[in-house]
Amino acid sequence: MIPTLKEVKEAVKRISPYVHKTPVLTSSTIDRMLDASVFFKCENFQRMGAFKFRGASNAILQLSEDERARGVITHSSGNFAAALALAAKLLNTKAYIVMPSDAPAVKKEAVAGYGAHIIECSPGLKNRESSMALQQKKTGATFIHPSNDLNVILGNSTAVMEMASQVETMDVVIAPVGGGGLIAGTALATNHLSYYIETIGAEPFGADDAYLSLKTGKIQPSINPLTIADGLKTQLGDLNFPIIQKFVSKIIRVEEREIIDSMKFIWERMKIVIEPSSAVAVAALFRNKSEFRKRRVGVILSGGNADLSNLPF
Amino acid sequence: MIPTLKEVKEAVKRISPYVHKTPVLTSSTIDRMLDASVFFKCENFQRMGAFKFRGASNAILQLSEDERARGVITHSSGNFAAALALAAKLLNTKAYIVMPSDAPAVKKEAVAGYGAHIIECSPGLKNRESSMALQQKKTGATFIHPSNDLNVILGNSTAVMEMASQVETMDVVIAPVGGGGLIAGTALATNHLSYYIETIGAEPFGADDAYLSLKTGKIQPSINPLTIADGLKTQLGDLNFPIIQKFVSKIIRVEEREIIDSMKFIWERMKIVIEPSSAVAVAALFRNKSEFRKRRVGVILSGGNADLSNLPF
Repeated sequence: MIPTLKEVKEAVKRISPYVHKTPVLTSSTIDRMLDASVFFKCENFQRMGAFKFRGASNAILQLSEDERARGVITHSSGNFAAALALAAKLLNTKAYIVMPSDAPAVKKEAVAGYGAHIIECSPGLKNRESSMALQQKKTGATFIHPSNDLNVILGNSTAVMEMASQVETMDVVIAPVGGGGLIAGTALATNHLSYYIETIGAEPFGADDAYLSLKTGKIQPSINPLTIADGLKTQLGDLNFPIIQKFVSKIIRVEEREIIDSMKFIWERMKIVIEPSSAVAVAALFRNKSEFRKRRVGVILSGGNADLSNLPF
Repeated sequence: MIPTLKEVKEAVKRISPYVHKTPVLTSSTIDRMLDASVFFKCENFQRMGAFKFRGASNAILQLSEDERARGVITHSSGNFAAALALAAKLLNTKAYIVMPSDAPAVKKEAVAGYGAHIIECSPGLKNRESSMALQQKKTGATFIHPSNDLNVILGNSTAVMEMASQVETMDVVIAPVGGGGLIAGTALATNHLSYYIETIGAEPFGADDAYLSLKTGKIQPSINPLTIADGLKTQLGDLNFPIIQKFVSKIIRVEEREIIDSMKFIWERMKIVIEPSSAVAVAALFRNKSEFRKRRVGVILSGGNADLSNLPF
């Protein structure tokens, strides 16, 4: 069930004509503060502003011609909706996105801007799923899950693969954990690259279902998650959890204050815009400083879609 | 009086061990919107967050050992204060910065953080100058003007020189115009690189003294400048004006609304933090779209020191 290095490499090749090769940035201030060498993979510069475009592209590229003609469908109010919409547009496929009626207008506009069909439903997972089932029946579109899909996971794994070609060596890589698609892809790729690269997840205390899942050995639901990192409120899935269990060494949990402070710090010092979910990985780095001392640390800045008119600082 | 290509190249070599080689970023969205190829030189990623570090370093490196032992002095409440303070620190020189008592606390803290001696004076140019004269007499420190100094201009010229090694060819380069140090350095270098690269300045309508100076052939004072681009309120000097007259093809003026919209656009789409002065160059690009169609355009993003707690959007 766990994808091979060959499959990871094929995904890299498959999506490379479509994705941006995002830069890796460093900060002498942060290196000095931590007495470490930190490499930031700027997926906030990825198309539509987040790594999600990688998984979405890879999933669509794996469909048969017949499936592509019928289109793809997902339910999401976040970055994956925009990612699937844009990937579908670039790959001449129809995208149907089920969004709750209370989704922010800016998110709807972004998805509509990429030419996707938006199917509005009442809020709540049940309503989303029934709206989606109905639409799927009507159109024959293929459902692409935002995080619990092996092709999505493989697509996500390409961020750290690309990073490995940009940075000489790394001892450890930190990525935020939401639905588990990014951390699974990252851990999978780093493990294939070298047994010695550790992969660490970062999660808010207010949405620590992955931490609890790893501890109990069983996927724990994300009940009433409360965090500014809205991309990390979802729970793990049966396809990514085994990969996470096998290859992720630990999950560092961080406080809301640390997330906001880290976000502001990166904006001010590195002059780049990252969203709260990305700041969770930075906060983990700052929180456990001593553990990263003298090491070469990769940090995946997962996205940059912050709402400028509603900043927490 | 006008520095040669040899002098420009020497400045590149002289400061390269101290400055960051900043990345050049592109945006497929902007290229599509303008039907052009636009290259953004990210001096917002430069040390202390602005190109000013280049000029400050070059000026200090040109002092004799004896002069360096006595230190450098300037009056500024903006980026050049921080630039000279940091450059002095890295080059083991004392820096004295005359700052008005009403300068923002964050700016004072930044300068103090780099270990410079701050000399507080009452607001107003007269007070600044008398405080500086007094301090200079006491210490024997060398005055470094923020923009009207050939070594500062040569230091600034290295940004576009570096850019020329990162981008294959450019037809035109746009830079903001404040005191004239950046645009003079940029125009000087591009002209030496190739007679065919045009250099265009960008200025707010509310502080269009350089536009008027070029038009009248005489340096016009900057009277009651009113713009959000606080770095561009100063006027040209007798050393940079002849260079600007000779090598700058024109100055595009932009409205305040265009500056704010451009700043927000860059933050949202490119996920990088730029300050209002940088947004002036972007606004000029957007305002005169048709003029840049099908061309390869370099834009100097001069700095990223925006006040996150006081954003205009």
